[in-house]
Formats: sequence, C-alpha cells, structure tokens
Amino acid sequence: MDSRKIGVFDSGLGGLTVVREMKRLLPKESLVYFGDTARLPYGSKSKEAIVRFSKQIMRFLMRHDVKAVIIACGTASANALEELRATFDLPIFGVVEPGVREAARSTRSGRIGITGTEATIRSGAYERLLKQINPALQVFSQACPLFVPLVEEGWFEDPVTRSVIHRYLQELKKQTVDTLVLGCTHYPLLRKLVQEEMGEEVTLVNPSSSAVQEVKAFLECHAMQTEDREGQYTFFASDNTEKFQAFGQQVLEMPLTVQKIQIETF
Amino acid sequence: MDSRKIGVFDSGLGGLTVVREMKRLLPKESLVYFGDTARLPYGSKSKEAIVRFSKQIMRFLMRHDVKAVIIACGTASANALEELRATFDLPIFGVVEPGVREAARSTRSGRIGITGTEATIRSGAYERLLKQINPALQVFSQACPLFVPLVEEGWFEDPVTRSVIHRYLQELKKQTVDTLVLGCTHYPLLRKLVQEEMGEEVTLVNPSSSAVQEVKAFLECHAMQTEDREGQYTFFASDNTEKFQAFGQQVLEMPLTVQKIQIETF
Repeated sequence: MDSRKIGVFDSGLGGLTVVREMKRLLPKESLVYFGDTARLPYGSKSKEAIVRFSKQIMRFLMRHDVKAVIIACGTASANALEELRATFDLPIFGVVEPGVREAARSTRSGRIGITGTEATIRSGAYERLLKQINPALQVFSQACPLFVPLVEEGWFEDPVTRSVIHRYLQELKKQTVDTLVLGCTHYPLLRKLVQEEMGEEVTLVNPSSSAVQEVKAFLECHAMQTEDREGQYTFFASDNTEKFQAFGQQVLEMPLTVQKIQIETF
Repeated sequence: MDSRKIGVFDSGLGGLTVVREMKRLLPKESLVYFGDTARLPYGSKSKEAIVRFSKQIMRFLMRHDVKAVIIACGTASANALEELRATFDLPIFGVVEPGVREAARSTRSGRIGITGTEATIRSGAYERLLKQINPALQVFSQACPLFVPLVEEGWFEDPVTRSVIHRYLQELKKQTVDTLVLGCTHYPLLRKLVQEEMGEEVTLVNPSSSAVQEVKAFLECHAMQTEDREGQYTFFASDNTEKFQAFGQQVLEMPLTVQKIQIETF
C-alpha cells in the first residue's frame, strides 16, 4: 500500500479525459495534475523542446512526492517518454504503449491507422512499437494539425469539422484500415464524426482509457494502490486557470480549484 | 544618424511579413529578429503570460544594443505594448496603433471591422484606440482562432478555409463595415479569400505595412536612420529553426541562418 499521489501532466486541458478515467477506475487514488497552458500546444514543437518542457514538469511533480507519473499527452508520450524514464527513477506511464497494445489486440486485418499531432506522427513511436509487437502489421499514419484547434473552438459536430476529417482521413480509409488510433487526448471529442467518416466496422482506439487500465493493473500487481479514503485532486496550470477550471468542472463533474504556477526554471 | 540595429519580435514566423516590408522600405537598416516558436501561439494565452514572454524577449533584444523595437505580432502589440513602454527606455512600435490610424483614414461610413486572435480581440485595443481618434466610429470585432492554424497548414485557398472565413466574417458583413483590419500578421496570407467573402468594395487594412511606414517616418524625423551600407539581418528562434529558415527564405527571397536560443530566464 502506498498513499502517495499520482502525478499527471499534459500540455493543457486534454489530459483531463485521463483524469476522468482515473476517477472512474481508481477512485481512491489522489493526484496532482499539471497543465502547461502557457506553452501549449506541444504538437507543433520540436522533440528537443518537448523533452525540455517535460523534464521541467517532472521536476515540479516530484516535489509533490508522487509515486508514479502518467504522461496524459500523446505528443509528450511519443517524444519524451524514453528520456524521462532514463532521467527519473519512478514508474512513468505514457499513452502510446497502452494504445499500441490495444490496437494490436483489436486488429483482424493487420492494417492499423494512426492519427496524431505533427510531432507525434514525426516521432514514428506508434509505428515502431506496433512493429515490435508484430512486424507483419501494416501501419498508416496521418498528422491532423487542425483537429486540436477545431476541438478548442468547440466545433465538435460542425460541417467544417466534417470536411476537415474527410480530408485528413480519406487516405487511411482508402488503405482499408480496420483499427484507428485516436493518438491525441483531444481527438476522442471528435469520435462521433470520425466514426461516421471511417464507418461502423472500424474500431477506434482511445489510448487514454487503455493507459489508465494499465496503471490500475500495475498498482495492484506492485501493491502500490491506496485504500481507506477518497482521492484528493490538486490542479496546477501555467496559464489561463479560469478556462481550465470551467472546462475541468464540466469534464469531471466536480468542483475544482486550479493554482497558477511558473515552472520554466524547474 | 544611428547605425545600431532595430529589434523585431513575434511569437513565430508571422513577423517575417514585417521584415519583408522593412527590406523594401528601410533597406539600409540592420535588424535582429526573435521568433518565440517554442511558446507560440500567443493568441490563446492570457495577457499576463503575453506580457511576461514579451519582457523576456525585450531583455534579450536589448543585449544586442538595439535603437528601437518593433512588435511584429498583433497579439503582443494589443496586450503588452503599454507595459513594455513603461518598462524599457527606447522607442517601441506595435502594429495596432498604425493599423488603427490607417483604418480611421480609410473608412467613409465609419463602420470598421476588426479581426484578430482571441487575445487581441479580448484586449479591446483596436476599439479603444479607434474611439480615441473618433468616438463616432462604430467598431465590430471578431476573433478568428482557426485562421492561424489554417495558414500554418498552408490551406490558403482551400474550400475548408473558405467556409471558415464565411463563418467568422458573416456577422461583420451583415454590419456592412466598409473597412476590415487584418489584425494578426498571419491573416494577410488569407487576403484573397477574405476579400472575396467581404466584397471588392471593402478596404482591407494590413497593419504590418502601416507600421513599417510609421517607423520609417520616425527614424527620419529623429535623424536615427542608418546610411552607407546594406542592412544586416540576424535571426533567432526558440524552436524549430529549420522550419523558420525555410519559410523565411521563401518570404524574404534571400538566404538566411537562424540561431536557436532559450530566453526563458532572461
């Protein structure tokens, strides 16, 4: 048993969908969340910048004596996970590996599509890990840089969003993938239109949800789970804390306060 | 006569359209440019963050012994100009005031539309300054958060871009503005479709170009211009220098090198 908190970080708000899964599957765990809203989005940044920002955040989270950290950001998971594991001595979970495992389990034809930010697709992380599991898998990748701004604009079911989805996904559709990974925490909010574009027979994989299931299994296996009380949540963001608070309360269906903090020099 | 450089900064690449104007109108002036590509975009950030980032950049530019600074970013001009002028003792030019003056000169009906990022529109800077010139002016503002990502995707004349432009501008069109300010350095790249949407009778104002004309007049008036040689350009960016270099060479039609630098602690 280990009553320390779990650290969670994201470039901004997207990671709250991971927190929602934790609230459902790991209700007794306490967590400290950091959203880097002053420097978001990470998806268009270089690997070097993403690694540097992620290390600053890790040093901040470790001051809160966390027992494990979840990178609730597809871009940071794809670009910084190895460097963070090499630098920090505690269990660190990304969303890519769990998403890869679920996609590999799900596919029957062996043809898998990956969507993500520019930096996630450029990293090649999904393709590399899928081929490690099964070199015969065929992987087709597509960066979708407009998906995050469309979600942030709130145009979840808009005709404009529909045409952008069609544009980005038509090539993956032509490749007749039977499984499509939503490789960015914002993308599940476009799930309905993406499913309509791809067709009902294509399985959509949400890596955030796979990730929390793996964290739960890990904590149980290592006897690191908390018991006896309800989880306490602490939220930090580097900018726009009011927007974060409003969005967070909506997603998590609970009151929350968000503290602003600068972590540039951590 | 003053042979020191002029400092120019932007959240990223957009400010290169200002440099292009400087090359045309002030070919003998040397400049040092900083693009904050590690933290872009500024348009969705809080005023507080924009001011903090801008001050760090000013301190960096002042190490290069500049005689004046141009804020080649609509968002930073609208949110940080006053604070920078209060903090630093040298001439600082933004793009908002010149754009305001040109819009006020251009309008005949007194009905002016303003487009910009969320942070620029939220600042109310254009409206406030226009009313200072003439309280009878009627100002209609519209944030266009998807314009920058559409430009960065390169979809300058795309059907999707056309529908997004229609969506954002229909209200301004209904208000029968006769002058429309393109209040973000990225927006002139959408000029053709915006003009088609608004109609040929509406005047589009590009504040970057107005700003460089005002800087030229200021330097002449204060005998601060350089003579005797061609301007030398030095470029710095906080991330993705390769992309910056490729884009810059295209916009400026000259070879250039870009140095990467971290300015978080300046």
